[in-house]
Amino acid sequence: MFEFQIHSKDGLSRTGTLNTPHGTIKTPVFMPVGTLGSVKGLTQEELLAIDAEIILSNTYHLFLRPGEKLIKENDGLHKWINWPKPMLTDSGGYQVFSLGGKRGQSRVKIDENGVKFTSHIDGSKHYLTPEKAIQIQHDLGADIIMAFDECAPADSTKEYFKKALTRTHNWLERCVKEHKGHEEKQALFGIVQGGLFADLRKESAEFVNSLNLPGNAIGGLSVGESKEDMDAMIKATIPHLSENKPRYLMGVGTPEDLLNGVEQGIDMFDCVNPTRIARHGTFYNFDGQFSIKNEQFKNDTSPLCPELEYPGNHYSRSYIRHLFREKEMLALRLLSINNLKFLINLMQLIRANIEQGTFQEFKTTFLERFNSKK
Amino acid sequence: MFEFQIHSKDGLSRTGTLNTPHGTIKTPVFMPVGTLGSVKGLTQEELLAIDAEIILSNTYHLFLRPGEKLIKENDGLHKWINWPKPMLTDSGGYQVFSLGGKRGQSRVKIDENGVKFTSHIDGSKHYLTPEKAIQIQHDLGADIIMAFDECAPADSTKEYFKKALTRTHNWLERCVKEHKGHEEKQALFGIVQGGLFADLRKESAEFVNSLNLPGNAIGGLSVGESKEDMDAMIKATIPHLSENKPRYLMGVGTPEDLLNGVEQGIDMFDCVNPTRIARHGTFYNFDGQFSIKNEQFKNDTSPLCPELEYPGNHYSRSYIRHLFREKEMLALRLLSINNLKFLINLMQLIRANIEQGTFQEFKTTFLERFNSKK
Repeated sequence: MFEFQIHSKDGLSRTGTLNTPHGTIKTPVFMPVGTLGSVKGLTQEELLAIDAEIILSNTYHLFLRPGEKLIKENDGLHKWINWPKPMLTDSGGYQVFSLGGKRGQSRVKIDENGVKFTSHIDGSKHYLTPEKAIQIQHDLGADIIMAFDECAPADSTKEYFKKALTRTHNWLERCVKEHKGHEEKQALFGIVQGGLFADLRKESAEFVNSLNLPGNAIGGLSVGESKEDMDAMIKATIPHLSENKPRYLMGVGTPEDLLNGVEQGIDMFDCVNPTRIARHGTFYNFDGQFSIKNEQFKNDTSPLCPELEYPGNHYSRSYIRHLFREKEMLALRLLSINNLKFLINLMQLIRANIEQGTFQEFKTTFLERFNSKK
Repeated sequence: MFEFQIHSKDGLSRTGTLNTPHGTIKTPVFMPVGTLGSVKGLTQEELLAIDAEIILSNTYHLFLRPGEKLIKENDGLHKWINWPKPMLTDSGGYQVFSLGGKRGQSRVKIDENGVKFTSHIDGSKHYLTPEKAIQIQHDLGADIIMAFDECAPADSTKEYFKKALTRTHNWLERCVKEHKGHEEKQALFGIVQGGLFADLRKESAEFVNSLNLPGNAIGGLSVGESKEDMDAMIKATIPHLSENKPRYLMGVGTPEDLLNGVEQGIDMFDCVNPTRIARHGTFYNFDGQFSIKNEQFKNDTSPLCPELEYPGNHYSRSYIRHLFREKEMLALRLLSINNLKFLINLMQLIRANIEQGTFQEFKTTFLERFNSKK
């Protein structure tokens, strides 16, 4: 189980397949995010129809509501939400810090053992440890689960990042220990941290890689840093991660970031961006990123992205603009499915071009057109 | 065009077919309401999948936004919203009074020629006349269009209802005149008014019926009156409407009201109820009307209504309850499609039972079970 095979390479980018108990994922892959067990506005059948290979859910959210025990009683997340294909859960590490209150304030307290935090929903108190995060993910039952890490705030000192890194590495070892006996059912990925410090990223990559887990992730990026910084941190990390293990760049998801990540040898991505911007009226097509609210679409009979095939792609921009302005749910559905299909289709094109050895030309041509209207 | 054929009778209830330019409607029929050109949360493909025969849109709303001219420029409502089957638009009469401001206040001013009102969206001033209401509906292009009527407030005096009725009848004649030359493309239905006064209902039915339009509607009911009053007004009206014309009871839509209406010989119904209650977490099944928020559904793996087949009917009550509590859009979609399919399926059962001459038994059995949990 969890065999990762590389099929072709083009520069540092590669295509591959990752086996899981719920099927095989083609990489590089973009994973739609269903925070609470639902990719906002879409059914799981629609996700299948747009060729989603794997979806992600958030442990932090499901732990708070409805609770992992209810999901376990309902035979796990796959069964409960009717999703037949692979699934990944994060560990809650990132959300504990971003949603559970601000550091230094009383709402989040971190020590060597774990993290005390306050629910963003009802203010109730909770305590997460590496062991607990893994137990919850065992109950949820996703194919791929993530280690519990500390994602230090971007403005922390290097000293603090070092301390957080030591803790993250200790916690990773505890996660691996807690996961013993479950390795055939669920793949545990470690997470490289280290902020924007190349030496810490290297140190972290070497440590995480040394545990020989079925996959390695890069965390703590796409949190407000520049594209150059993100790129530099990926470059500082990749050489220290096994060639023959999938590499997952967490929380990354604009078309340009996906292309840049693949170029560096990243295999997996996730991001709430495509559905979040959809809810604000923004859609992707090959000519760029547009707001459906714009006057230019008032009488536009074209679909959002004429080149894409997906359920609902025959509705016109004129109609969707009207629906969005009137706050009709259907607008959010149609914009969301368009944006997800756009990224999934982009990954399909990326894979085809890696296989043909034309990734660089594809990237250049794609971005030229995508950025042409800016 | 617009030929209405009665196929079988059982007491006063009957099954039939109504031909329109966009296909044939089987009656009795329930028409889902897509106020702004969208049945809230669903795609038109989903409406086809649940066997919706005809949908309704609101002239008042579309006139204000995006404006009927935009829809005409986009080849009419059918094309613009991608709906291939029959469609009905109301005249805006009801909404002008219910949304355009309260009578006696400055926001709605009615005279013999028409109605001045204030947009509920932006406070802009508008003027609707019978002619204008018909012209807008010509631009929208629905198969069935409605006369512009005055729906007097339920607490008006009989004297006022008489005055409003005279006006409504005058307006109907002006609508018929304005519609000249369009009769083959769009069927104009007249509307019987008269409040809760049996003699006025009779007078109105006789007048409306005398114009020999392709269909007759009963308006001004389901506005807060008792079931007995609604029933009495239908009884006072039906005998004065042609047997061989479809009868449309406007704005009516609970399962019990549909059964009572069919029993009296009604052929068409519309109501926002099934999707509106869905957005508040309420769903129908054969055992009654339930709130998905209830604790009893926490671990309930059954679908909302196990007997119904529709896209999404495999999602469990447990999952949908979680989605609803978390304000996930998908909950509203699934509850809405369930409720619409429930009413459409009820009409299918009603038609089958009329054809078998078992309508009364069906009604009794259905309501016994439906009301058993009350």
